[in-house]
Amino acid sequence: MRVFNFAAGPATLPLEVLQQAREELLDWQGSGMSVMEVSHRGKAFIACAEAAEGELRKLLAVPANYKILFLQGGGTGQFSAVPLNISTPESTVDYINTGSWSKKALGEAKKYAKVNVAADEAASSYTTVPEQSALKLTPNAAYVHYTPNETIGGVEFPYIPNTGNVPLVADMSSTILSRPFDVSKFGVIYASAQKNIGPSGLAVVIVRDDLLGKARPITPSILNYTEMAETQSMSNTPPTFGWYLSGLVFRHIAGNGGVAHIAKQNEAKAKKLYDAIDSSGFYKNPVAKNCRSWMNVPFTLAKPELDKTFLAEAKAAGLVNLEGHRSVGGMRASIYNAMPPAGVDALIAFMKEFQRRHG
Amino acid sequence: MRVFNFAAGPATLPLEVLQQAREELLDWQGSGMSVMEVSHRGKAFIACAEAAEGELRKLLAVPANYKILFLQGGGTGQFSAVPLNISTPESTVDYINTGSWSKKALGEAKKYAKVNVAADEAASSYTTVPEQSALKLTPNAAYVHYTPNETIGGVEFPYIPNTGNVPLVADMSSTILSRPFDVSKFGVIYASAQKNIGPSGLAVVIVRDDLLGKARPITPSILNYTEMAETQSMSNTPPTFGWYLSGLVFRHIAGNGGVAHIAKQNEAKAKKLYDAIDSSGFYKNPVAKNCRSWMNVPFTLAKPELDKTFLAEAKAAGLVNLEGHRSVGGMRASIYNAMPPAGVDALIAFMKEFQRRHG
Repeated sequence: MRVFNFAAGPATLPLEVLQQAREELLDWQGSGMSVMEVSHRGKAFIACAEAAEGELRKLLAVPANYKILFLQGGGTGQFSAVPLNISTPESTVDYINTGSWSKKALGEAKKYAKVNVAADEAASSYTTVPEQSALKLTPNAAYVHYTPNETIGGVEFPYIPNTGNVPLVADMSSTILSRPFDVSKFGVIYASAQKNIGPSGLAVVIVRDDLLGKARPITPSILNYTEMAETQSMSNTPPTFGWYLSGLVFRHIAGNGGVAHIAKQNEAKAKKLYDAIDSSGFYKNPVAKNCRSWMNVPFTLAKPELDKTFLAEAKAAGLVNLEGHRSVGGMRASIYNAMPPAGVDALIAFMKEFQRRHG
Repeated sequence: MRVFNFAAGPATLPLEVLQQAREELLDWQGSGMSVMEVSHRGKAFIACAEAAEGELRKLLAVPANYKILFLQGGGTGQFSAVPLNISTPESTVDYINTGSWSKKALGEAKKYAKVNVAADEAASSYTTVPEQSALKLTPNAAYVHYTPNETIGGVEFPYIPNTGNVPLVADMSSTILSRPFDVSKFGVIYASAQKNIGPSGLAVVIVRDDLLGKARPITPSILNYTEMAETQSMSNTPPTFGWYLSGLVFRHIAGNGGVAHIAKQNEAKAKKLYDAIDSSGFYKNPVAKNCRSWMNVPFTLAKPELDKTFLAEAKAAGLVNLEGHRSVGGMRASIYNAMPPAGVDALIAFMKEFQRRHG
């Protein structure tokens, strides 16, 4: 029996995608081989890879002057790749710190450039985002980096920072494809796959053409945007299965109304869950209302001594992976694209019933 | 219908492994989730990851003073990782050049250290390996790197170079698990997964303890051996599906007599194919007899104008991906662990029949 899986990533995938992958796992497109067994340089896989890229380009309306790369190393690889590709050792690079993932990104960047923290939400324990006017941006910074959605804190920017002529870089790992946005406002967008795209082991990078050609000589080939853009992400063997499965996910989104439709569904799922939490008098979400994430909903119980009981009873009810991140505790429901509204409804019903019995 | 797939990588996988993966693709270990959907930090996946590591450690008799890492970035990622982790910018590093992959490895190393080419088989068009006495090793080099098996040229070292106290580093991508060998002779062993291990997107690294703790400050986290060893390869989200599937492959090898048994089978498969080529008077393998690969068998036809016909007829007979690498042309049969003896027999029978009709 399939459960409702609220894991933060690797996370639940669309059932139809898994079913198709299973169906063709031993014989892909009548080849007599698994998609895992075919050459990445063969016609069949190249067509599959290009179709995935094209589908993503359409879903996000990616302008023609942006390249889409399919790389290894996840988001953490990109923490290094961004400064290596678009800054110099003398550069100042601006980072907006809104929580755990921003902090990891800027920590890695310190290996390669001078990091200016343009804002730090420590004062609110990372339950807020800074306003545009509060950003202390460096004139002529090599770029400004931010994390539109903090997977652990459940904090999501309600706006896209305006950085003028300085390229804006975003770690969209846990928000990409959750709603439409204007790609042209960004220099680099990257996302690890294992939330809204596909299995772990893949990072999707969307990079504006004019930022290519600037990689430092010490950039490892696997993280070199220029080299990867010139070779359609195949300067080395790409993670073919992940790329293939991501293509299935993109097609699944396209076939279900696209990003605009899924955004409405995501907004409704999130609203329902936050409303249930806020009106309960038992559950609590700590995040400021203007920047609550559509994707990751952390919450606490009025009686933390019931945490283990909550998790055990939820699991018995087919609602799994609700424990909060080890760094913060409490609960967290990650409700990515692939979490059906019925899963959120079931969670809310369970929470109400749990409160009735234990509240 | 399954075909016999002679691709060089991504390559054929054991049928039983694919069958098991298919069976549990939607419900892994009764969890109600795919293995792709579970957290890498959950108990179930950690047990799966540790079991895979333990199985590989047993298969290769890896001594206790070696760490086994499961990383992203494939072999190409390791081309950067090796110099970044175990040399300094002032180091001289020795590279033995026996073909395409050695050359790529040393090209990447030039970004990070002074490369001394300790031997270069250009004179034989890379159809030979240097003898031990011909190696021009640098006293106090940071390490010596070589490629025990050249996937494109089909050249395999019949011996392990003796480098004294200088750590020996080997790119075993296309030979690992094909035969037993003495791990203790090496400082670092690495292998991309997509030949004898599992799907692409994974690199297995076996590193001697005393070489940890030396990574340069500029080493990207995803390539940092020390950091990865300290976190059981989970300082970031690993490629969980590839790791899981590799574990199935390891267990499959263990359940079929282990590496010693598979080595006998590999030796027999290779001998049969080389004998058929040598005795044909029509097919030809260019590699010196003392260093012919057990895994990758390149060959040419006496009439190269028949190449396309050969490939088309082979495909029609269920023998696929026999074209040689685009850089060398001709044919290549990759006969990794997962290629059953019946596949080699079928290829030989086809080659004889083709020669009879066209020779």
